[in-house]
Amino acid sequence: MADEWAGFGADLHLELRGQGLRAGLVEALREAARTGRLAPGTRLPSSRTLAADLGIARNTVAEAYAELVAEGWLTARQGSGTRVAQRAAPRRTAHQKAASPRVERVTQRPAHRLVAGAPDLASFPRAEWLKAARRALTAAPHEAFGYGDPYGRIELRTALAGYLARARGVYAEPERIVICSGFVHGLTLLGTVLRRQRKVREVAVEAYGYAVHRKRLSDTGLRLPALSFDTLGSRTGELAAMKDVGAVLLTPAHQFPMGVALHPDRRAEAVDWARRSGGLVLEDDYDGEFRYDRQPVGALQGLDPDRVVYLGTASKSLAPGLRIGWLVLPPGLAGEVAAAKGPMDWATSALDQLTLAEFLVSGAYDRHVRGMRLRYRRRRDQLVAALAERAPEVTVSGIAAGMHAVLELPPGTEASVLQAAAWQGLALQGLSHYRHPATPPTRDALVVGYGTPSDSAWSGALDALCRVLP
Amino acid sequence: MADEWAGFGADLHLELRGQGLRAGLVEALREAARTGRLAPGTRLPSSRTLAADLGIARNTVAEAYAELVAEGWLTARQGSGTRVAQRAAPRRTAHQKAASPRVERVTQRPAHRLVAGAPDLASFPRAEWLKAARRALTAAPHEAFGYGDPYGRIELRTALAGYLARARGVYAEPERIVICSGFVHGLTLLGTVLRRQRKVREVAVEAYGYAVHRKRLSDTGLRLPALSFDTLGSRTGELAAMKDVGAVLLTPAHQFPMGVALHPDRRAEAVDWARRSGGLVLEDDYDGEFRYDRQPVGALQGLDPDRVVYLGTASKSLAPGLRIGWLVLPPGLAGEVAAAKGPMDWATSALDQLTLAEFLVSGAYDRHVRGMRLRYRRRRDQLVAALAERAPEVTVSGIAAGMHAVLELPPGTEASVLQAAAWQGLALQGLSHYRHPATPPTRDALVVGYGTPSDSAWSGALDALCRVLP
Repeated sequence: MADEWAGFGADLHLELRGQGLRAGLVEALREAARTGRLAPGTRLPSSRTLAADLGIARNTVAEAYAELVAEGWLTARQGSGTRVAQRAAPRRTAHQKAASPRVERVTQRPAHRLVAGAPDLASFPRAEWLKAARRALTAAPHEAFGYGDPYGRIELRTALAGYLARARGVYAEPERIVICSGFVHGLTLLGTVLRRQRKVREVAVEAYGYAVHRKRLSDTGLRLPALSFDTLGSRTGELAAMKDVGAVLLTPAHQFPMGVALHPDRRAEAVDWARRSGGLVLEDDYDGEFRYDRQPVGALQGLDPDRVVYLGTASKSLAPGLRIGWLVLPPGLAGEVAAAKGPMDWATSALDQLTLAEFLVSGAYDRHVRGMRLRYRRRRDQLVAALAERAPEVTVSGIAAGMHAVLELPPGTEASVLQAAAWQGLALQGLSHYRHPATPPTRDALVVGYGTPSDSAWSGALDALCRVLP
Repeated sequence: MADEWAGFGADLHLELRGQGLRAGLVEALREAARTGRLAPGTRLPSSRTLAADLGIARNTVAEAYAELVAEGWLTARQGSGTRVAQRAAPRRTAHQKAASPRVERVTQRPAHRLVAGAPDLASFPRAEWLKAARRALTAAPHEAFGYGDPYGRIELRTALAGYLARARGVYAEPERIVICSGFVHGLTLLGTVLRRQRKVREVAVEAYGYAVHRKRLSDTGLRLPALSFDTLGSRTGELAAMKDVGAVLLTPAHQFPMGVALHPDRRAEAVDWARRSGGLVLEDDYDGEFRYDRQPVGALQGLDPDRVVYLGTASKSLAPGLRIGWLVLPPGLAGEVAAAKGPMDWATSALDQLTLAEFLVSGAYDRHVRGMRLRYRRRRDQLVAALAERAPEVTVSGIAAGMHAVLELPPGTEASVLQAAAWQGLALQGLSHYRHPATPPTRDALVVGYGTPSDSAWSGALDALCRVLP
């Protein structure tokens, strides 16, 4: 029998009821085909294998198969074995169909997408990634396949420590790094620790940003007052008067979505506030690697690694589908955040962590970032040129960086432009979409994610954009 | 300049302060080396590349490099470029060293591990997995690299629907399946939805189980009364009298850790209770694929897919390091659980999901499970034989299934056996480790995870176990 267990064949579950073995098997197989548990086309195990699995005579199985072939439930052909016939569709009640969540989630896909937040997915370096995966999977110790360290794999934390120090001026040691499944996961962990362990009541946020980030923080019980915003960036000087604020969430290198780099004075004010008050700066460095006009501004974290938490992600530099991000934390907080993840690593695939480590160490990450920088820079230049020619009333604000741009519109036109975009099948967000509820509306603008389309879709999307602009 | 951005070289961040370009560059590089931001041995970009990146004259960079070589911070050799010298170790304060969480987490590794809960990690099918990854990565549509559907990839849900119907008798449609990053993630999501959306106050649990599972549920605010336990399994008849209980968590196919299959009457009682009371059964099918004496008992979920939630995982059948599990849910609850995950898939790597789908569809999963079943079965037989010969007072209870066994000890000996095991460097848990706080201690027993060691470590571990038994 041992041989049978190891043999090839579908791992079939059958309930044999008490009406005689052959009849029971026929009924069980018929029921399985009728309800869709056995999908049309499924190959059944050989009669010898199934007989051994069930501990019954081979002839019993062969007879049951023959009967079901005769009834039309199964088909048998030389060379392709016994299969479930194509006819039997699974049972679905009207109720189940109506309640199917899939149906609700199907929406029409827009013809063009210029929503900010995702990189050009068509440029994911598949071949290079697979090479790194092969090396990582071959070299991995057995324990890598087990429940992991909640800090994340040491290989990845070591590789990131080197990269972040070199490329972003982060003071990073592997002991300060916690791997998470992207920025939102990291932010949720931080919010939980700040609220529950550290009894922080408020985290200040920027006047503009992702509603979903605010939602995740407020779900932990935190209140989220907003800093006001001007041409130098968020007014961090306001923190001194916010008595219940224990931390501030900033995008210093490239404000999202405004596109401004936080002024050096404002950077200093944020760090000074954190030192004086014992608070924390949460630095969201989502696209810090992408600056086109000059050397990128270094991470704020370098100014005071014990008062600034650095949050980075592979979602913009590589792909969101990887679900990998990282936190660089003061040592005590690193332990609390890792504990909040759970006693074992319940988030991030060890194989992907090892692959990313390999990708970083081999230099493939640097090469990819440089290639993408060229590509996004070219798109930004094309966007600016197209606007100058076709929509001279619209100006691009913010620094030459990242994968989105803010297009300043004539006053009072944002809603009508978005309406025109929707009619053209162009997915797009206005600046108001990102506004903190307590921030008064000031400007009409579009947030254009020029990094999102593939190369082949880009010129069509740009053309569609120009058509809807005033 | 465009050529430079695409060229090879370290992506170096430097802050140039206002003391003249050459002096500023020297100071910035010196500081980077001193603080460890540039690790010893790091290769610097060529003077031409760095000059272009910074927008300064090449000679300025070349002079700065030469000065730092003279000072000993850098080394320059023909053919290997300019590198950071080996001397400069990163700054670490005494405080940081003392507070390093890494140090606290280093513990001595035991010589033998027989703790239940992990499969044989050395048997992970690396080559087959890599093949599946190659096919998945080649075939994936571009959108697979983006933020995903919180239900999980449709490819994986479709493959799982077929597999679970066939192998475990689960009534599964892709629309009912939500992918999560393992059992604990799925359980946490369910607990959150039951407590917050559905206002459930209590979830009944079994008398024995993982404390960490109870902890995750109680962290959501649920109370966790325990069912009592006898030779037929958990006494599900007690549910009728538990007025605040809205759900019950069970391991019907193979009680963890007791090793009993839930009696058919008890299965029926659980489902009847759920139907009458409007409650839910949460079916933890952690090792349902591994049964050695007969056809596995089908999933309870097949009895009533609208009242039973099925929880499965790749952590026992493949490896915990994948961080992939799945829930099969009544349609309405599937929507709520997916919403609790967040509006985008913030948990599970899309590439791993596609790889697992490919692994299932190609038949590699079936082959792997069959191979592992043979292997674990052999180990269980060897364990039983060794006990009969070397520790006849110790008996194995529970069905021939899974990757752990319960060893019944003479009364009053559990603590002393565990003490002896610790002295031998044998990692092992007693039954009391898994006891619900409200359950009175009844038996002295060990829970032996015979699936955990690699093939090469198994006989040594078995021998160490026999030495510590009475």
